[in-house]
Amino acid sequence: MSILVVGSVAIDSVKTPFGERKEALGGSATYFSMAASFFNKVNIVATVGEDFPKKYISLFKSRSVGVEGLHVARGKTFRWKGWYDYDLNTAHTVYTHLNVFKDFKPEVPRDLRKSKNVFLANIDPELQYNVLKQVDRPRLVACDSMNYWLEHKKKAFEKLLDKVDILLLNDSEARQFSGESNLVNAAKFIVSVGPRAVIIKKGEHGVIYFSKKSHFIAPAYLLETIYDPTGAGDTFAGGLMGYLSKCPKIDEASIRKGIIYGSILASFAVEDFSVNKLLEISLDDINARYRHFREITRF
Amino acid sequence: MSILVVGSVAIDSVKTPFGERKEALGGSATYFSMAASFFNKVNIVATVGEDFPKKYISLFKSRSVGVEGLHVARGKTFRWKGWYDYDLNTAHTVYTHLNVFKDFKPEVPRDLRKSKNVFLANIDPELQYNVLKQVDRPRLVACDSMNYWLEHKKKAFEKLLDKVDILLLNDSEARQFSGESNLVNAAKFIVSVGPRAVIIKKGEHGVIYFSKKSHFIAPAYLLETIYDPTGAGDTFAGGLMGYLSKCPKIDEASIRKGIIYGSILASFAVEDFSVNKLLEISLDDINARYRHFREITRF
Repeated sequence: MSILVVGSVAIDSVKTPFGERKEALGGSATYFSMAASFFNKVNIVATVGEDFPKKYISLFKSRSVGVEGLHVARGKTFRWKGWYDYDLNTAHTVYTHLNVFKDFKPEVPRDLRKSKNVFLANIDPELQYNVLKQVDRPRLVACDSMNYWLEHKKKAFEKLLDKVDILLLNDSEARQFSGESNLVNAAKFIVSVGPRAVIIKKGEHGVIYFSKKSHFIAPAYLLETIYDPTGAGDTFAGGLMGYLSKCPKIDEASIRKGIIYGSILASFAVEDFSVNKLLEISLDDINARYRHFREITRF
Repeated sequence: MSILVVGSVAIDSVKTPFGERKEALGGSATYFSMAASFFNKVNIVATVGEDFPKKYISLFKSRSVGVEGLHVARGKTFRWKGWYDYDLNTAHTVYTHLNVFKDFKPEVPRDLRKSKNVFLANIDPELQYNVLKQVDRPRLVACDSMNYWLEHKKKAFEKLLDKVDILLLNDSEARQFSGESNLVNAAKFIVSVGPRAVIIKKGEHGVIYFSKKSHFIAPAYLLETIYDPTGAGDTFAGGLMGYLSKCPKIDEASIRKGIIYGSILASFAVEDFSVNKLLEISLDDINARYRHFREITRF
């Protein structure tokens, strides 16, 4: 069952204590789709400008990422420039040029409207809602957001939540949205107002999963070198949704495994700039790290 | 095989966003021994002043904590006053009155010199070394420290490390001692200079264990309410050493289980002020939470 993702495809310039990359492939839908494509066919709904390099289109195609819904608009591609210091948890933005993304009205191509697995990456919750309306009874809907929407479009976000199976937020967003400083209370609040489950991402400290019935906690895979944390959250979502799209049943056990696959994919992504590391590895590498993760966490 | 702990027995006054306690029982050896006593006989080597309440001596005895090595010196008991704000990871000290602790020269009573399991809580590393010399070939030696000693008594600390099986540090101490910001690199450095293994405590984010051969990562047990984090690290050590003291063999598997028992004991301790919560619970409660921890982490 294939996967549909709506989000951004961007050109990123990033500097970290370990190096710098200018005008590299980025964006939430990019990281998500590269990660999910290890498991299944992914289709992107996004917009880029006329300047978007053809080589990246070819790259998507070579990874079984469908670009039928990747609209090329007049103007320039969304660009972000930022940097991280040794605290790799905090991105410092130099600029965000929305460019063609400013007028993005996502349209799901007709033959993708039966997609069974949908990931709504971080965009305006009204657009996320609008995308969902175009999809015919998906089996699984997961959704990301960010502090800006939680503050400025809270009502639209809350309306959306009712249709979401799994909401992904980072810890500060979960605290902001719930008004609870304790993450257990934050998670309980969140599942009480809509989504069937919430995954709170704590970066290098792992994740917390809460549904109405149960919860699951997992540390992050330990790394010696983190070159660039950009896209880690979307890569996590890609691993999670990619794995789940192959599962006949979405239950507690499959979600837990999906969360670990998400962590593993994210652990690879941050070991290089842009999506470079994801282009180097194979499903065997992912499964080997998955087994290693199990080995270093069991007791 | 009984346990020997050398450390502080103190009177603490603590304020957190959730309440305040004045002149309550505290100190590293106190938290450690209360936690370890669920598993085994523990003997304290420490010093208190003449003002130390008799009821606390009775309390130790009632918990099978041996006080033969608890020296009553002329003067006042060690007192600490501090507070925490909503970031419960950082203790703010109002005062530290060492009092009789200033002249503490730990002496291990003759019949405790064959103790097989020794925990050197955070005191001057020269005193820790001196205690170890008084013990006749212990089976297991674990040791804690703090930033002050790592900075001002680094040589004495390094000399001690050679005799330590498991070193416990928190994340900032591990970074300080190793000069490495990445915790994997910090842990690898630490086990290269002496101890057989290191446990890096990350508070609410769990622990990392590294030996020369392997590693283990565990999240912390999730709590809705943390009333007072004072003593969590020493309680963790008490659970770890208590469990290990009952194990015929100290190997990777038993250490991993011990680490989880340590986390569980610490999770109880922070649910109330002083050692109050540890006085309320039973080994059944601990085992129930251990099983729950296993349930919410397995995948």
